[in-house]
Amino acid sequence: MGESRVEPELRRILSNVASGKIPVERAVKLLSTGFDDLGFAKVDLQRAWRHGHPEVILCEGKTTDHIVAIAKSLAEQHTNILATRASAEVFDAIRSVLPDSVYHELARIVVVRPESTERREGILVVSGGTSDIPVAEEAAVTAECMGNEVDRMYDVGVAGLHRLLSQLERLRKARVIVAVAGMEGALPSVVAGLVDCPVIAVPTSVGYGAHFNGLASLLAMLNSCASGVAVVNINNGFGAGYIASQINRLGTGK
Amino acid sequence: MGESRVEPELRRILSNVASGKIPVERAVKLLSTGFDDLGFAKVDLQRAWRHGHPEVILCEGKTTDHIVAIAKSLAEQHTNILATRASAEVFDAIRSVLPDSVYHELARIVVVRPESTERREGILVVSGGTSDIPVAEEAAVTAECMGNEVDRMYDVGVAGLHRLLSQLERLRKARVIVAVAGMEGALPSVVAGLVDCPVIAVPTSVGYGAHFNGLASLLAMLNSCASGVAVVNINNGFGAGYIASQINRLGTGK
Amino acid sequence: MGESRVEPELRRILSNVASGKIPVERAVKLLSTGFDDLGFAKVDLQRAWRHGHPEVILCEGKTTDHIVAIAKSLAEQHTNILATRASAEVFDAIRSVLPDSVYHELARIVVVRPESTERREGILVVSGGTSDIPVAEEAAVTAECMGNEVDRMYDVGVAGLHRLLSQLERLRKARVIVAVAGMEGALPSVVAGLVDCPVIAVPTSVGYGAHFNGLASLLAMLNSCASGVAVVNINNGFGAGYIASQINRLGTGK
Amino acid sequence: MGESRVEPELRRILSNVASGKIPVERAVKLLSTGFDDLGFAKVDLQRAWRHGHPEVILCEGKTTDHIVAIAKSLAEQHTNILATRASAEVFDAIRSVLPDSVYHELARIVVVRPESTERREGILVVSGGTSDIPVAEEAAVTAECMGNEVDRMYDVGVAGLHRLLSQLERLRKARVIVAVAGMEGALPSVVAGLVDCPVIAVPTSVGYGAHFNGLASLLAMLNSCASGVAVVNINNGFGAGYIASQINRLGTGK
Amino acid sequence: MGESRVEPELRRILSNVASGKIPVERAVKLLSTGFDDLGFAKVDLQRAWRHGHPEVILCEGKTTDHIVAIAKSLAEQHTNILATRASAEVFDAIRSVLPDSVYHELARIVVVRPESTERREGILVVSGGTSDIPVAEEAAVTAECMGNEVDRMYDVGVAGLHRLLSQLERLRKARVIVAVAGMEGALPSVVAGLVDCPVIAVPTSVGYGAHFNGLASLLAMLNSCASGVAVVNINNGFGAGYIASQINRLGTGK
Amino acid sequence: MGESRVEPELRRILSNVASGKIPVERAVKLLSTGFDDLGFAKVDLQRAWRHGHPEVILCEGKTTDHIVAIAKSLAEQHTNILATRASAEVFDAIRSVLPDSVYHELARIVVVRPESTERREGILVVSGGTSDIPVAEEAAVTAECMGNEVDRMYDVGVAGLHRLLSQLERLRKARVIVAVAGMEGALPSVVAGLVDCPVIAVPTSVGYGAHFNGLASLLAMLNSCASGVAVVNINNGFGAGYIASQINRLGTGK
Amino acid sequence: MGESRVEPELRRILSNVASGKIPVERAVKLLSTGFDDLGFAKVDLQRAWRHGHPEVILCEGKTTDHIVAIAKSLAEQHTNILATRASAEVFDAIRSVLPDSVYHELARIVVVRPESTERREGILVVSGGTSDIPVAEEAAVTAECMGNEVDRMYDVGVAGLHRLLSQLERLRKARVIVAVAGMEGALPSVVAGLVDCPVIAVPTSVGYGAHFNGLASLLAMLNSCASGVAVVNINNGFGAGYIASQINRLGTGK
Amino acid sequence: MGESRVEPELRRILSNVASGKIPVERAVKLLSTGFDDLGFAKVDLQRAWRHGHPEVILCEGKTTDHIVAIAKSLAEQHTNILATRASAEVFDAIRSVLPDSVYHELARIVVVRPESTERREGILVVSGGTSDIPVAEEAAVTAECMGNEVDRMYDVGVAGLHRLLSQLERLRKARVIVAVAGMEGALPSVVAGLVDCPVIAVPTSVGYGAHFNGLASLLAMLNSCASGVAVVNINNGFGAGYIASQINRLGTGK
Repeated sequence: MGESRVEPELRRILSNVASGKIPVERAVKLLSTGFDDLGFAKVDLQRAWRHGHPEVILCEGKTTDHIVAIAKSLAEQHTNILATRASAEVFDAIRSVLPDSVYHELARIVVVRPESTERREGILVVSGGTSDIPVAEEAAVTAECMGNEVDRMYDVGVAGLHRLLSQLERLRKARVIVAVAGMEGALPSVVAGLVDCPVIAVPTSVGYGAHFNGLASLLAMLNSCASGVAVVNINNGFGAGYIASQINRLGTGK
Repeated sequence: MGESRVEPELRRILSNVASGKIPVERAVKLLSTGFDDLGFAKVDLQRAWRHGHPEVILCEGKTTDHIVAIAKSLAEQHTNILATRASAEVFDAIRSVLPDSVYHELARIVVVRPESTERREGILVVSGGTSDIPVAEEAAVTAECMGNEVDRMYDVGVAGLHRLLSQLERLRKARVIVAVAGMEGALPSVVAGLVDCPVIAVPTSVGYGAHFNGLASLLAMLNSCASGVAVVNINNGFGAGYIASQINRLGTGK
Repeated sequence: MGESRVEPELRRILSNVASGKIPVERAVKLLSTGFDDLGFAKVDLQRAWRHGHPEVILCEGKTTDHIVAIAKSLAEQHTNILATRASAEVFDAIRSVLPDSVYHELARIVVVRPESTERREGILVVSGGTSDIPVAEEAAVTAECMGNEVDRMYDVGVAGLHRLLSQLERLRKARVIVAVAGMEGALPSVVAGLVDCPVIAVPTSVGYGAHFNGLASLLAMLNSCASGVAVVNINNGFGAGYIASQINRLGTGK
Repeated sequence: MGESRVEPELRRILSNVASGKIPVERAVKLLSTGFDDLGFAKVDLQRAWRHGHPEVILCEGKTTDHIVAIAKSLAEQHTNILATRASAEVFDAIRSVLPDSVYHELARIVVVRPESTERREGILVVSGGTSDIPVAEEAAVTAECMGNEVDRMYDVGVAGLHRLLSQLERLRKARVIVAVAGMEGALPSVVAGLVDCPVIAVPTSVGYGAHFNGLASLLAMLNSCASGVAVVNINNGFGAGYIASQINRLGTGK
Repeated sequence: MGESRVEPELRRILSNVASGKIPVERAVKLLSTGFDDLGFAKVDLQRAWRHGHPEVILCEGKTTDHIVAIAKSLAEQHTNILATRASAEVFDAIRSVLPDSVYHELARIVVVRPESTERREGILVVSGGTSDIPVAEEAAVTAECMGNEVDRMYDVGVAGLHRLLSQLERLRKARVIVAVAGMEGALPSVVAGLVDCPVIAVPTSVGYGAHFNGLASLLAMLNSCASGVAVVNINNGFGAGYIASQINRLGTGK
Repeated sequence: MGESRVEPELRRILSNVASGKIPVERAVKLLSTGFDDLGFAKVDLQRAWRHGHPEVILCEGKTTDHIVAIAKSLAEQHTNILATRASAEVFDAIRSVLPDSVYHELARIVVVRPESTERREGILVVSGGTSDIPVAEEAAVTAECMGNEVDRMYDVGVAGLHRLLSQLERLRKARVIVAVAGMEGALPSVVAGLVDCPVIAVPTSVGYGAHFNGLASLLAMLNSCASGVAVVNINNGFGAGYIASQINRLGTGK
Repeated sequence: MGESRVEPELRRILSNVASGKIPVERAVKLLSTGFDDLGFAKVDLQRAWRHGHPEVILCEGKTTDHIVAIAKSLAEQHTNILATRASAEVFDAIRSVLPDSVYHELARIVVVRPESTERREGILVVSGGTSDIPVAEEAAVTAECMGNEVDRMYDVGVAGLHRLLSQLERLRKARVIVAVAGMEGALPSVVAGLVDCPVIAVPTSVGYGAHFNGLASLLAMLNSCASGVAVVNINNGFGAGYIASQINRLGTGK
Repeated sequence: MGESRVEPELRRILSNVASGKIPVERAVKLLSTGFDDLGFAKVDLQRAWRHGHPEVILCEGKTTDHIVAIAKSLAEQHTNILATRASAEVFDAIRSVLPDSVYHELARIVVVRPESTERREGILVVSGGTSDIPVAEEAAVTAECMGNEVDRMYDVGVAGLHRLLSQLERLRKARVIVAVAGMEGALPSVVAGLVDCPVIAVPTSVGYGAHFNGLASLLAMLNSCASGVAVVNINNGFGAGYIASQINRLGTGK
């Protein structure tokens, strides 16, 4: 599957060179070293070849100048570029040089050169509580940008099971579920006990005291008594949306 | 309520002195210093006055000689004396000097001078899995020795919710529930969301890896999103049975 | 006990529908799905049925808009609605749409549509130090809103035992005690050694250095050498007040 | 997809009742409460309906008697029943009552009533070192029992990258990869950087000192700088094989 | 004070050389490099000069051969040599070459060349429970060997305060108290609140679950709300006895 | 020793009542319940009796109003009252009602009603680095207020041993040493190896990364290979100064 | 090697005294006690003798006044004095009294009295990501000030291995490599597997959630499966640059 | 430097092929894939090329069969093959097929096909205590097998500084020092303060209680206040010896 990605990508690049959309010098870099060396960053130009999606910019910890420069480098070649954990200030800076950008505020994601694509159904994002929504949205928006239709089901935590049990049909229709929860982190276990598809669990830092900023939820999810659960880092909605998209792509010929 | 416990206890002691069941010297100690000084131990003779139940012997970490001597001291005055975390060897040693003793093997509890009492209904002990049963039994046997009728519901973990949901009537009949679970420790949250009585949560060390010998379950229970949950130490079935009995006694005039 | 809660609640709802206090549409939701779907939240309308008290709003981590919307949904049906960890700003926002609200500043609790009820005696809240009072008040106000008369005994930590020992009578009169302490967290053990009622222990984050934001107190309480202690999360005054109320309700026919 | 599993499963059960393979009483339990109540266990009879595979027995922490009884209950209805973390003694006990059982020694898995099925290609299991093989085999055998063809690539850790890089073709052919590693746990990151399929990372306890029994590998994998990685518990080869099988089933019409 | 120790020690050594009790070669080493180089150990011959007591042998982690050789080296010059954490086997090996040795079994201490000295009163060792006695004895025997009269008061934990409160006079007579406790580790706080002398707190590993092998007691003691408490390592009875002796020596002209 | 403190204290109180310095009502409280009940605080009036020094106010975590009220209560009876961890704002508030107060800025201590007393020599405070000075000063000022002459030796950490070794005479003259250090926390071990008096070790939070806010220093000090070291909480200069004063008082007839 | 450093240093000092560059009084201090006692600091004047480089000022945790005074003391004798973790404010304060100072903003290092020296080639600093650059620069600038030519290779993390593999020649030319990485911290392992020179690993706090502020990277590096890796504290670029310089100096006759 | 290793190694291999010491088939593998695929292991045949020393076998966690097979594969091509953490049983198994093997019992290292080489002076291994010797020996034997002359200085911990200070000359003669210590782990800091060469610190698990199996020593070493210290994993004597050898090789033309 991986290898078959190379040829169409190569065709896409060369067509873009032919039409002038990708400059010749850029194509040289892309096809020789495979990265764009900015000094402070070596932008991975072959990520889409190897991985099915261009390099994503994690904004936390980077200066705004660096973020913008990396975004510009990627935008020479790609669409639907994601910049995650982006503040409103970062968005303004990106937009000033790359006007074709949109900001998903709740998810804190900037999408540079957004492009609609056909969307695969199959991903469901559930959250335990209202406070978990920013992380859930990070997952949902990521998956949408990668070509998925996302169903959202929020505030269905285990303290009021009837809210979840009333949605069995939607749960069972999913091909892959992202389950986001803080506090005791029980939601992925309960969900995985009800369905037969893979569940990607996202612990959040919603809680206090002996929650230790997400540790309690993380440990609970790693120790799920239900089979079919795998876990990403605390608050890592992006990572969950990404792998959910990879899973959802399987068997669709894409 | 506490104070009212003194007078009947005093009457019971003096009647026992009168009938020769408690030796005079013992009664002197009991009514003066309030403890029996064995050197290596100061057996608390007034625990029943203050606390409603004689001192309990935690066998772990004590030599067999010490355990037996403490049991003998308590047996001069009390019935239904509990020795918890007791091995079969400890039981044999106790029985050789206090033949009126029974061993609850699964719960690892020795009861010295067991005495039947009228039993209050109201306590339900639930467990997440089969491996949690020793801890659950420690809770159940403790509560039984303290005068409670105990309902048991084992292996109703959240990976197969229909097992728990099929028992709603029994759950809702309880006055207090002890919920025992290892792994992700979600059972107390789910149970507390379904009932309106207090839930005493017992994390167990059943799990491996990132379970960290019960830490994962403990943290989950402390962070329950459902109200009405309080937690005892990892594997502390005894402590849960004890406080459940104290709770169940409320409003019964005992 | 749980089941018997349904019929009077149903009667109360239908009377309120008859009198127009609960709109017909609301009653439909309540009796069909059992929750009010706000998108970002699924407000649990049957919590009072199952649990004896309406859903409580934990304000930390929620936007003010979400808090207000949830409060409004609950207020269509309930009185004595609790919003905990509420800042003064949150209170102002709630009051602007639900004027019948009061703020307990020290406890950081907003009560929406407060309603006096007959209050059961039996709950005592003790604190180790002056700095623990905010958590102790969260417990006390919660229990009061749930229909309890609360006795308060503050700053009776173990460094000056005579302060506690001078209050033995009040301690022994309680049906359930909430013991709040930071630092070495010894208060619940000492208290539980003196009384025969259940003790709900609340560790606080009062301390520094090797206190690790409450961890030291939490571990101490989980390892109490006195029987009859169960523990809630660090600083979780609300949770302690809630379960204390559940316990105090037992045997009172409520 | 989930729902569509019910009808064929129902047809399979009733055919088996018709042919006498499933006793009538068993079918009654299965279609009414959905579990077989053994007292110490409530064997989940509908797991295959909901989840696509019968309940799996985690042997660690259970008595041999309990394991055998649960296996017998499951064997009345299912084939390819997995008992994981099984010692040779447990295998002997199972085989004595269920002779149609095989033991995968390295993986420590007993398969009761093994049945060959058509196997889907697509799963690759890689391990960092020779010492990680038991965990890797637990994953591989689990996936095989669930109907997958498994490709194995062991001892390709990052200290000698040429070993991994020489296998790029096999890596890129996989639909889902299970990456097993102890020590610094870098293998899943490196693998995920090379492929575009989902990677399930399994930290192992192979290491010493500041490895803290797998914690170091676990944290590394949760913090992977490569996208497309989700993590299961330390040494949880079973869990990785299970979710890999769920993922690999997608798009195959099974 | 320290310097004044040199002259009498020097006088003692030279007298011993004169009388043949210390060989000349030994005295050369002692007065030149200050240690006896055994290759695997550099026995500190000047410890008594600098520190008031000869080097102590911590047996844990050393081979029996090494222990015996170090003991022999020290015995050429000193009396009252302590070997702590010594098993019965280690004692046998020491005694076979240094017959003038005694074993304190409960404390697990061997004293080589015991010598009675005048004993200073002033040290009290208290323990929370019976299981803490081995650690308490390690402290008591250490202090005794260093020339102190030790008062012992065991099993006075906070669950039965009357046991401790009945001993106020003994508590207040002490010049320094060693307080040994496991579980919630509250004893040093309570004791320090009752006296005006320094309290050396010794956490023990007596406990289970969230006790984390002594961590809970350690943290509690470090966070004591009572002033006048300092703490040694978990189970470090030796260290507590040692510093208590140093403190008790103050103001006695020794 | 403790008991002998009662009579002079009683004499001091009654003289003060006679002279009008302590109001009659205050003396009644002091001699009956032993505390001043302010509602939010129960000020311990007998601390000086039991402990040799009036109650100390830890300002962190208390409101300014509470601090001032407690200080006022103590000032009716005592001099040399300590308020630790006090900001400049707290000092201003105290001084506005108790003008006879001074502020030790580096140590962050307010002394209310300072009174010179004869000072005992014997305490030495050493610090590893310049950044540890605030904690070292908290210890030094505390000890000074309790009637000790304090010698200070700062920035003598182990990276430049000659700085410490050049001061051997001062080190050996001390009766008790407070050793304050962050980073690897080796100073107390090195100091205790050079002297024969007790060393009170104070870990500080000076460090970063794997220092974990003082944990590294704390653990190092608890595991000192030198005998004669006891440890207080991270940054707890006050506690070290307090117990050092208690130790230094021994043998001086005070 | 160490001893041979004394004589030239002594010659250098005396020449400077002769020429008036070092005042006589300073030389007296330097050659007698070996430190400059500022009260709050004992500036180590012999560090260069013993260690090959003057004392370095860690600015974090020190007041600006203290920093400036220490810098002044060092500047009487040395050039190329490093002040690390320096803010722009600290730089301004230093420059106002020591105008011959430069600020490396990214590295947060002030160099007082910078002096060019011949630079040894051989040190390579690599970083995993763009966000790690501040720590990498701290290492690089430190090494440069100590007389090394530094090669920089940034953003070559393991998610895009071709970036690193394209630089094999530069990697293999190094005599010592500093490898800086956050997240899963795999870079030092991968690098050490490719080269035969020592690798100094620097974990950074770049990450979130279960990264625990650098703990994940630290543990990964300590558990490297590749030989030839040693680790410094989280974010300790200075320490890595320092030891890299010491290593690079070997065999160069300096 | 790395590249220059290839040509002589190639020459050595081909000579060995010519002389029949390396079989032709082996040389094919070595020069094509670069590893020997045993299924359970991919023995890295090019490690010596890239890294200067053949692959080392960490025996812990491997079966004896696997160890022997890997050793045999390596022995076809290399001498001085190290098998670390080897029990006597493992040694016996290796020797039975590879008789030319020796066992360093204290270091728990087997050397297969030992070969004397010229040894470079420059490495000094110091240990804090006698109990640390096994780890120190692991470092020393490793370095010796890699062609170094090793100086050993054991039991020079900081509790008796004169033992270390008496050896200044040997300390200062070293080109690189391995400093091994348990307990408070202060030795590397003190040593690094005295010398100007790099110090590789090895924390050991020697200690108890709050030592947490080496964590205390590890943290202390990572937070060393002396410059020039880098740290390896707890008890990782091998790793320290390895990197010390790499460092010592610098500037020697090897």
